[in-house]
Amino acid sequence: MAKLGFVGLGVMGSRMVKRLLDAGHEVTGYNRTRSKAEWLVKAGMKWADTPAAAARAGEITLSMVTNTEALKAVTEGPEGILAGLSAGKIYVDMSTVSPAASRQLAAQVATKGARMLDAPVSGSVSTLEEGKLSIMAGGERDAFERARPVLEAIGPKVTYVGGNGLAVTMKIATNLSLATQMLAFSEGVLLAEKSGIARETAVEVLLNSVMASPMIKYRGPFVLNMPGEAWFDVNMMQKDLLLALELGRQLDVPLPTTAVTNEMLTTARGMGLAKQDFAVLFEALARMSGVKK
Amino acid sequence: MAKLGFVGLGVMGSRMVKRLLDAGHEVTGYNRTRSKAEWLVKAGMKWADTPAAAARAGEITLSMVTNTEALKAVTEGPEGILAGLSAGKIYVDMSTVSPAASRQLAAQVATKGARMLDAPVSGSVSTLEEGKLSIMAGGERDAFERARPVLEAIGPKVTYVGGNGLAVTMKIATNLSLATQMLAFSEGVLLAEKSGIARETAVEVLLNSVMASPMIKYRGPFVLNMPGEAWFDVNMMQKDLLLALELGRQLDVPLPTTAVTNEMLTTARGMGLAKQDFAVLFEALARMSGVKK
Amino acid sequence: MAKLGFVGLGVMGSRMVKRLLDAGHEVTGYNRTRSKAEWLVKAGMKWADTPAAAARAGEITLSMVTNTEALKAVTEGPEGILAGLSAGKIYVDMSTVSPAASRQLAAQVATKGARMLDAPVSGSVSTLEEGKLSIMAGGERDAFERARPVLEAIGPKVTYVGGNGLAVTMKIATNLSLATQMLAFSEGVLLAEKSGIARETAVEVLLNSVMASPMIKYRGPFVLNMPGEAWFDVNMMQKDLLLALELGRQLDVPLPTTAVTNEMLTTARGMGLAKQDFAVLFEALARMSGVKK
Amino acid sequence: MAKLGFVGLGVMGSRMVKRLLDAGHEVTGYNRTRSKAEWLVKAGMKWADTPAAAARAGEITLSMVTNTEALKAVTEGPEGILAGLSAGKIYVDMSTVSPAASRQLAAQVATKGARMLDAPVSGSVSTLEEGKLSIMAGGERDAFERARPVLEAIGPKVTYVGGNGLAVTMKIATNLSLATQMLAFSEGVLLAEKSGIARETAVEVLLNSVMASPMIKYRGPFVLNMPGEAWFDVNMMQKDLLLALELGRQLDVPLPTTAVTNEMLTTARGMGLAKQDFAVLFEALARMSGVKK
Repeated sequence: MAKLGFVGLGVMGSRMVKRLLDAGHEVTGYNRTRSKAEWLVKAGMKWADTPAAAARAGEITLSMVTNTEALKAVTEGPEGILAGLSAGKIYVDMSTVSPAASRQLAAQVATKGARMLDAPVSGSVSTLEEGKLSIMAGGERDAFERARPVLEAIGPKVTYVGGNGLAVTMKIATNLSLATQMLAFSEGVLLAEKSGIARETAVEVLLNSVMASPMIKYRGPFVLNMPGEAWFDVNMMQKDLLLALELGRQLDVPLPTTAVTNEMLTTARGMGLAKQDFAVLFEALARMSGVKK
Repeated sequence: MAKLGFVGLGVMGSRMVKRLLDAGHEVTGYNRTRSKAEWLVKAGMKWADTPAAAARAGEITLSMVTNTEALKAVTEGPEGILAGLSAGKIYVDMSTVSPAASRQLAAQVATKGARMLDAPVSGSVSTLEEGKLSIMAGGERDAFERARPVLEAIGPKVTYVGGNGLAVTMKIATNLSLATQMLAFSEGVLLAEKSGIARETAVEVLLNSVMASPMIKYRGPFVLNMPGEAWFDVNMMQKDLLLALELGRQLDVPLPTTAVTNEMLTTARGMGLAKQDFAVLFEALARMSGVKK
Repeated sequence: MAKLGFVGLGVMGSRMVKRLLDAGHEVTGYNRTRSKAEWLVKAGMKWADTPAAAARAGEITLSMVTNTEALKAVTEGPEGILAGLSAGKIYVDMSTVSPAASRQLAAQVATKGARMLDAPVSGSVSTLEEGKLSIMAGGERDAFERARPVLEAIGPKVTYVGGNGLAVTMKIATNLSLATQMLAFSEGVLLAEKSGIARETAVEVLLNSVMASPMIKYRGPFVLNMPGEAWFDVNMMQKDLLLALELGRQLDVPLPTTAVTNEMLTTARGMGLAKQDFAVLFEALARMSGVKK
Repeated sequence: MAKLGFVGLGVMGSRMVKRLLDAGHEVTGYNRTRSKAEWLVKAGMKWADTPAAAARAGEITLSMVTNTEALKAVTEGPEGILAGLSAGKIYVDMSTVSPAASRQLAAQVATKGARMLDAPVSGSVSTLEEGKLSIMAGGERDAFERARPVLEAIGPKVTYVGGNGLAVTMKIATNLSLATQMLAFSEGVLLAEKSGIARETAVEVLLNSVMASPMIKYRGPFVLNMPGEAWFDVNMMQKDLLLALELGRQLDVPLPTTAVTNEMLTTARGMGLAKQDFAVLFEALARMSGVKK
């Protein structure tokens, strides 16, 4: 079992730590707000007062934050993760940030004699709790091999995709499908509904069909009842699509469905639906079609 | 157990009959080419010389043919299914035809005192053989209740969606998602590949992610090795999308992803790929992106 | 000067006849409602009681009706144009119908020993009155040469494009641009407006720019004040786009902007704007963007 | 007549200076390469050794450079335009840069007690030489009124659109139409050609139709013969579309045709056509359609 540091004990991060503790690892964790982490301390996690302290405690240190800005906040400065890293250590960032930002951080980590992996996840809290989370990893192969058992304790599906930054690239390549799938699903439901089929029935049939991805399985029912709080809102999804569209332009890859879906997310924003889960694409399409709530 | 007629013993139809025989039903079957049905006769199926004969033998008669023209060929004329129907009988067509054509046939069936259901399936041969086929049914509720046990022997997932023609509508609403999912998947794979991730790895990661619908699970690997024979080719898929787009216009439902995907199917045709499985959308996109085979 | 028959004295047709009379031609005209043609009779036009009578009176007979159904009504039957045609005569249809329907009619005309041209126009009533109408012609070359002076009296720009049906094809290829130009114009106006530029100013600048086609010159101001009556409504424009999309599929030509614009016309219909001039695409886009009237 | 400074004597800038000299203005000009400006010196222009010197000489100073980077190079530093500006002077930038960059520069100009206008042009060299150039201007109204006679000597069409940055916004809103118009035109030409109409004929008919904007009039013939050198290449056009798409997202304006056209520009890049005039969109579409050169 390994000595681990962990920075970022939010909804996802805290549950990851729980799984690591359950697997027998020794985890020293840091979070901006300590109160949210009390239950983990009770479950055996050691507390670190700074990201640097967590990194000093761990042979392998993991982080899970919301975006590039948050990542800078926990890595830079005298109390940051970089300050706690030293030769031979491994740092694994599981956040979704731009491939360029991830590569830049990996270069900084290397100057400490440590090595970094980018290891974003595909799936939600419920996927994680069901033990079905999928993790992609990018970085040096042998660094990956050392970190693999730890990632498998979280995952369990772990795939090595290549050098630094390629795992976040792979994450972006995955997420572009999600919004498009939701929009195509919405087109089908609306077509069925306007033909005279009850919306509930249309959703049920589609969820039983070969088009029902795990994402559609849990998000499809949102067209019947939107969740009180967004799991992943329109703005968050559009940030991922913009990363994909930017990459597409750099690499000369046309992205026809992504571009069209992105304009529909803008439509949702224009209609005042930016803060809702991106399943609200159905509502935007329904309004364009003249369907009143 | 029921006395059943069955018309159309192709790849799907023959395997449906096998399941019905296995469930203990008495089946009288007809096919244009008898030789293809010999294995079913050996398995206990009775042979009918005409569609009308099959319909006369069955309390419930089912058909499974490729398109509207083929459906006319087996239903009309002195040897057709209509000629074999009489008061109290039920006729279930499982083919994918236009909602209008299906409704018209249902009206003809009604003049015989019989009742019709449209009951297209979602899934492929492998889905059927694994006993995971999903069936939608449209028509009168009590006719559906009488036919339900038979459909469940094929299915097993059976959903009643409403009046005549609504099940084929639901089928169309399902299929529009499939081509779009395949194209979005292709965008993701190509983006990953041009970023430096091996195509095999990109496919593997996507198949482990929450975007992997059952369709993507079996068709995604085609971007690595296209099948010798198309499961569902570009032309067949485009026929379904055209039915969707036509319906969308009639019902004032904008279908942004469907329209864009349809133009990509046309692109595949322009590139000479019409007869290949619609997974060839990946190849069309790759050529647009300058990727040589 | 030639003896001419003319069938269909609506808004466009009647003004065409006026130009032909002004050019010194002898015109025998027919219209379903005679009262609307009185001013032409006063201007020197002879009246025909049936389309056949008009065709009998003319060496060259022209027709200008709204669609394929109206064309059948004036060409078929004992009182139709076909009944009045005989060897050596020329029949010119200026309506916009499908290429296939036009070719079929040309074949019927040929059985009479006469020859047909399809000669749709590009432009509106105002273009016609300003003497700037553009006419495309399809059919046999020498039949075209005989009819050319007559068409130039209407035009004056006349272009021979090839065999029967190719001129209506060319018309469809022209019209697909119009809706897309209007939508792109709307995107520009809305972007400017939401940036803080007055809508009037944005329209003025665009009308002075290199993007201002003649169509944009007269239709662009509609985004400030929609006309009381549609010049060409959403439904009419969508019919032309559907002819284009159908042709694109038959000939394997991807039509990305046409497909996207078509879905926006459907959106306009969904919002209850079907009967308005297709310049209402701006209004549809503005609603998607959250702009209230 | 006014004392003017002018920075950037490229293809457009030099011809603007010529028009200003012809109108009787006193112009002091600067260019990175002096040799290119000799003909203007012979025509009466005074030479400045630095941008600052040109700005010191002029009551009103104008600049015309290729992009944001070039603009920084001529405005910043001890030899830049900003160094030469002082209270009461006016600075007019005619380049196309991002609205944000333009506003930032205007703020720097204000700290000198001077005022700035952004005044991009719509049109090409030939439009300029024909005396048909259209100029948009953004900034304070009275600064605009002082500069107006000078701009009209270049223009002659000059439109005040509002505060700083709004004229470049308007330029972006104009340019998004151009690429889309070119693509829609290409769809029409290709549809006609595959129907059997000669490409030359299709182009001729479209250039005579109501869809023929000034841009289509000069760029449409490029589908017959691409120019040896691009007037405005795929990369340059895509930069403008990206500015539009970015603005659309910020302001919640869906841009369906712009997004689709942008992916087609990426396709052109994928096919190796990035350095060609953006009329090469036709070639990209033709390849998707299976048309060989």
